[in-house]
Amino acid sequence: MANITKKVSWSSRGDESGGGERTPLLNGSEEVRYTRQVGLLSGDGGMFHIGRLSTVDLEEDMTSDEVNSIDCVKVNRFVFQSLDYDNSENQLFLEEERRMSFLGFKCLEISRWVICGLIGFLTGLIACCIDIAVENLAGVKYFVVKQNIEKFTEVGGLSISLILWAVLNAAFVMVGAVIVAFFEPGAAGSGIPQIKCYLNGVKIPRVRQMFHLLNVVVGCRNDEGPMIHSGAVVAAGVSQGRSTSLKKDFKIFEYFRRDTEKRDFVSAGAAAGVSAAFGAPVGGVLFSLEEGASFWNQMLTWRIFFASMISTFTLNFFLSIYNKKPGDLSSPGLINFGRFESDSVAYNLYEIPLFIVMGAAGGLLGALFNILNYWLTIFRIRYVHQPCLQVMEAMLVAAVTATVSFAMIYFSNDCQPLGPDQSEDYPLQLFCADGEYNSMATAFFNTPERSVRSLFHNPPGSYNPLTLSLFTLTYFFLACWTYGLTVSAGVFIPSLLIGAAWGRLFGILLASITPDGSIWADPGKYALIGAAAQLGGIVRMTLSLTVIMVEATGNVTYGLPIMLVLLTAKIVGDYFVEGLYDIHIKLQSVPFLHLEAPATSHWLTAREVMSAPVTCFNRIEKVGTIVDVLSNTSTNHNGFPVVVPVMGKVCGLILRSQLIVLLKHKVFVELARSRLTQRKLQLKDFRDAYPRFPPIQSIHISQDERECMMDLTEFMNPTPYTVPQETSLPRVFKLFRALGLRHLVVVDSENRVSYCVH
Amino acid sequence: MANITKKVSWSSRGDESGGGERTPLLNGSEEVRYTRQVGLLSGDGGMFHIGRLSTVDLEEDMTSDEVNSIDCVKVNRFVFQSLDYDNSENQLFLEEERRMSFLGFKCLEISRWVICGLIGFLTGLIACCIDIAVENLAGVKYFVVKQNIEKFTEVGGLSISLILWAVLNAAFVMVGAVIVAFFEPGAAGSGIPQIKCYLNGVKIPRVRQMFHLLNVVVGCRNDEGPMIHSGAVVAAGVSQGRSTSLKKDFKIFEYFRRDTEKRDFVSAGAAAGVSAAFGAPVGGVLFSLEEGASFWNQMLTWRIFFASMISTFTLNFFLSIYNKKPGDLSSPGLINFGRFESDSVAYNLYEIPLFIVMGAAGGLLGALFNILNYWLTIFRIRYVHQPCLQVMEAMLVAAVTATVSFAMIYFSNDCQPLGPDQSEDYPLQLFCADGEYNSMATAFFNTPERSVRSLFHNPPGSYNPLTLSLFTLTYFFLACWTYGLTVSAGVFIPSLLIGAAWGRLFGILLASITPDGSIWADPGKYALIGAAAQLGGIVRMTLSLTVIMVEATGNVTYGLPIMLVLLTAKIVGDYFVEGLYDIHIKLQSVPFLHLEAPATSHWLTAREVMSAPVTCFNRIEKVGTIVDVLSNTSTNHNGFPVVVPVMGKVCGLILRSQLIVLLKHKVFVELARSRLTQRKLQLKDFRDAYPRFPPIQSIHISQDERECMMDLTEFMNPTPYTVPQETSLPRVFKLFRALGLRHLVVVDSENRVSYCVH
Repeated sequence: MANITKKVSWSSRGDESGGGERTPLLNGSEEVRYTRQVGLLSGDGGMFHIGRLSTVDLEEDMTSDEVNSIDCVKVNRFVFQSLDYDNSENQLFLEEERRMSFLGFKCLEISRWVICGLIGFLTGLIACCIDIAVENLAGVKYFVVKQNIEKFTEVGGLSISLILWAVLNAAFVMVGAVIVAFFEPGAAGSGIPQIKCYLNGVKIPRVRQMFHLLNVVVGCRNDEGPMIHSGAVVAAGVSQGRSTSLKKDFKIFEYFRRDTEKRDFVSAGAAAGVSAAFGAPVGGVLFSLEEGASFWNQMLTWRIFFASMISTFTLNFFLSIYNKKPGDLSSPGLINFGRFESDSVAYNLYEIPLFIVMGAAGGLLGALFNILNYWLTIFRIRYVHQPCLQVMEAMLVAAVTATVSFAMIYFSNDCQPLGPDQSEDYPLQLFCADGEYNSMATAFFNTPERSVRSLFHNPPGSYNPLTLSLFTLTYFFLACWTYGLTVSAGVFIPSLLIGAAWGRLFGILLASITPDGSIWADPGKYALIGAAAQLGGIVRMTLSLTVIMVEATGNVTYGLPIMLVLLTAKIVGDYFVEGLYDIHIKLQSVPFLHLEAPATSHWLTAREVMSAPVTCFNRIEKVGTIVDVLSNTSTNHNGFPVVVPVMGKVCGLILRSQLIVLLKHKVFVELARSRLTQRKLQLKDFRDAYPRFPPIQSIHISQDERECMMDLTEFMNPTPYTVPQETSLPRVFKLFRALGLRHLVVVDSENRVSYCVH
Repeated sequence: MANITKKVSWSSRGDESGGGERTPLLNGSEEVRYTRQVGLLSGDGGMFHIGRLSTVDLEEDMTSDEVNSIDCVKVNRFVFQSLDYDNSENQLFLEEERRMSFLGFKCLEISRWVICGLIGFLTGLIACCIDIAVENLAGVKYFVVKQNIEKFTEVGGLSISLILWAVLNAAFVMVGAVIVAFFEPGAAGSGIPQIKCYLNGVKIPRVRQMFHLLNVVVGCRNDEGPMIHSGAVVAAGVSQGRSTSLKKDFKIFEYFRRDTEKRDFVSAGAAAGVSAAFGAPVGGVLFSLEEGASFWNQMLTWRIFFASMISTFTLNFFLSIYNKKPGDLSSPGLINFGRFESDSVAYNLYEIPLFIVMGAAGGLLGALFNILNYWLTIFRIRYVHQPCLQVMEAMLVAAVTATVSFAMIYFSNDCQPLGPDQSEDYPLQLFCADGEYNSMATAFFNTPERSVRSLFHNPPGSYNPLTLSLFTLTYFFLACWTYGLTVSAGVFIPSLLIGAAWGRLFGILLASITPDGSIWADPGKYALIGAAAQLGGIVRMTLSLTVIMVEATGNVTYGLPIMLVLLTAKIVGDYFVEGLYDIHIKLQSVPFLHLEAPATSHWLTAREVMSAPVTCFNRIEKVGTIVDVLSNTSTNHNGFPVVVPVMGKVCGLILRSQLIVLLKHKVFVELARSRLTQRKLQLKDFRDAYPRFPPIQSIHISQDERECMMDLTEFMNPTPYTVPQETSLPRVFKLFRALGLRHLVVVDSENRVSYCVH
């Protein structure tokens, strides 16, 4: 038992307020402090919250040294709110539902489909705009640099080209970094960890779409992360029928203004984003499910699927018009890896072990990448937390990238003939003979997406092994340095590029060391497998990634080896370190709820992990008491059990947001008596306030009003989920996870709230 | 309120025992009576069970006439048991979990992967055996008939050929029908409804694999349903480390002997089955999820994925050896529709509306198919319920099928040249000129799978429109008649065949009526879309079916139109009638738990839907009382709340199965006192009895023992899920569905079991 106490007390060690009594974590509007090392569950006054208590500690996969090193890291003062996937079924809600006819529900269902269609359409449209903008901007950039390099190659003033390239790169990045660092801290990174958190039930604050999209365009890259993020942002906007940033309310879809519905639509948006990015509608749905949903609902899945489909369709349709081939819908996706020809014998049995080896290599390299990036991110959190420094770092990375690339190209003498089937957009001749181009330049001097395509599809002999090894090495470290900068940039494309490079290298070496080299004819195949292995090793997705890769390459034949490789990479990688997204979620102090409670947590009971005491309200409560409790920052709870006065039996649960609305509308017993004509508060009033409820400080309550009483009966949820004190932690966890709860009342055998205070 | 009472009383109208008090439904071992019209939830003594209360009634989508017509249908006296996806976390369990080290849990996790690998391997192996057996048997059958037809065509004695064919067909079917009708009533139909029910949480009794597999082979068809079924059966066997039919216990995997774990493995088995049937590992996973899982768990998904992958691999590997091309793994799947060539422009924008029209047509035809089959099934339940009659019907269908096919072939004069690229295995010349073959015969005189392949891939002009229309018409009604016979046969392949036929017809007509026919050059494309539309219209799957079709045709390009078509077919079809599997589930009286509570059910509370009174036990209860309660067939409950004696507060939940084991081992307080050395009952004793707990009648309790006391404290689940009486039905439903519950205790505000009796 001593051991349990120790562990539990450990988990609250880092808390400034120093004890269980005043440690409300992820608790309404209060900031989460020092939850860096935590990730599981916490009690807040007799009720569980998604919050703290370290899984890390329980699983014992982190040494105390590591923990200490994180403990002293300076904390981002982000405010995390938990989503409430559980409807508050109070009287108002039930009355509304009961008033609604069967037809009414049908209409709602149809609206949901319409919204999903809209989400898909808008996401596709945005993807299309981004694609066109990025293509043109990249075109300008590469054209200018190419012109200069070619001009100066002859006269020998290559340093000017270098400076030009570095400056251009840095300038583009600067714009993006400034936006992110100063206006949109939430938009940093790939955006996927944020969406993952949202779908898991944690609201990531302050992400606005306008800045975000601008950022993506400026960043000159088609990327999965920003695209997914955009889809989710569009979904959150459309489904609510209004924009809080633009202060415009269209007065539609009001029914959907609650966490439950919004989260469903955001899932659809994320799926639509993936679908547009890779032309992978099924992959998009799977991504949403694999990363997000904990509760599988068929109807929801179909709607998500519909949104994905519409998104791909829209993108294809408009791109086909832009490309002057209207109506040709068969090359979907923003990011296109080119179509693999489907041979009858694409791979053979004896290649399977090779694929597994490549998967293991991908897992190892991925783990290395993640560990390096983990250290780097800790360094950044500790020392590079001022916006100016962040922008400077981003510019430095851009300049270094340009310089390194330039040096690599300069010192490489891998010249390839410029054949008629050569499809590079910017072949650089440099010091090569006429009619030849520099092959290293193809890899570096190009959008990463095009480089991947070249590595997949260029005929054997397009690259020599030295070029590929040097490229892999430098790009690996550059990509690792880039991820986590204060710019919007994904990790998919860089990972694929690294993997494609060493995969192709592997294929070439294989052909050269075996006596009958011709059976390993196609290095492009190994590039594909390598790309899958590297990406799998870094992000550790399996099912969705398989489908995305299959849909993006347009070939089912490689589905099986890709799966195998991804699974191997995941198993190998997981042995060393978590996936990149999970690392960043942990580092961002997000109280992420994992799939399952730690295996060895059966010895913990609800009473032990809940935080106490619990703040309760009476069914009819004094306004002054409520205001005081809500204003008390040290017990900044978000949900309060409502109890029967003397006996203390739980009879309901009321949320901070509901109380705020009640206070704002001054729903006091005395006033209701005096003003008989007063309009009865309706569900609409709560919905209008959603999701940005005003803080308690902004509501003025006079000294007279403080003496009034409030009747909570109508507004509280009369049937909150409860658990007995002795419930084991895995059981509690299952409830939280399966039902998407935010609060869970712990009761004793008499149905009284445990550790209740008034 | 009167309305509510009426509705609630209506829902128990059909019950023989006539009221709430004695109507335990789906309640342990008692038979489900007259639950034909029901599908939602029911109370059993203060606790909810998955059971009755009509969704039909609540949704008002069935007229009272229909209900009456079903009411008087004679009922199969199947026994349905509900699965308990909730662990009984009693002291024994918690002690075991707490004793287990972190390493122990790792080992368990690894065993789970090993089991999934085994499931995949065995399923693949079985698929391979089936394939080889079916291929050879079909080869013999068609060879004999072909020989005869050719011999007799010249001499004019075609009637002999007809009789031969009809007899051969009927003989093959007879063997299958006899097995099913007399030994394996559970194996009738496609097997998918059964698996769907199992994954939903309802155990379908008595399905044994040996008979089943034999049946599949005899039926001479590669089919999805039997394959999925086999996978599930293998999974159930392997994961338990023993076979109850073979009475062999390998003493391994004992930890997994409970519903929770078993259901997970069965999901994997079903996925492996689909994977083997269509060479669609991702499709398999999605099938399992779409049809089964209500609770999404990433780790589980990965394991399912692994099983699917191994299954396809195994099948491929052994088939490649059998086909003398060892190591060629690129043509996966038992059912192979041939690879579509990936053109750069596979379809065009203006074809999209056509695809949607085809989807709608598929939806309509599917609905028609389902309605006809529904009537037919009701007819069968009412009049054809004796095994002999069933066998005779099956033989009749076989003979009629042969006759109709023969007549169609005989009267058709659609001769096609026998070109060098002609790939039919059994081209019939009949009355065609030399060097030609009868095209109608290609469609009829072939395994359906091969016919589908021909329709997809034969060059334009291989079929004339009249042949196709006649074929569609006859095959539609024959397939409709066949489904639901007492043989194991799926609906996938026949549906695909019907759809492919009218799809191809559509394509041909399109080319002939438009001025520039060449743009609709490929009727095979329309055959594919038609097949998808028809299948979607009948079974109403979308996501998984899309992936399965894409994986089975090996072409991603058609993914988008297939999706669109499936979604349209589903929407149109759902307007008229449910999917075929759902219809059969309803007709089999299975208390299936749907995705969501009916939209308009918020006015129902837990108190109203629970059945009362509740049978409770005291914490220390007299053995006689327990035996009496368990033996009482009129209150044949499966779970009993345990209460604190005087106050009646709930303090636990104990299951019938646990009580049976306790009685069997005579765990009585008095005996424990007298025999101090008595071995303490362990979790292992419960596991050994799982899943076939003996009936109470088989346990002998003497009159003296009846006076003993039993202490339930250690064995009951001390923290059962409870809900307050006022909880709305959707909220209760969500708990049932998300947590996979079987029992839910309804308590009042004092935490006392509602309507409790001793």
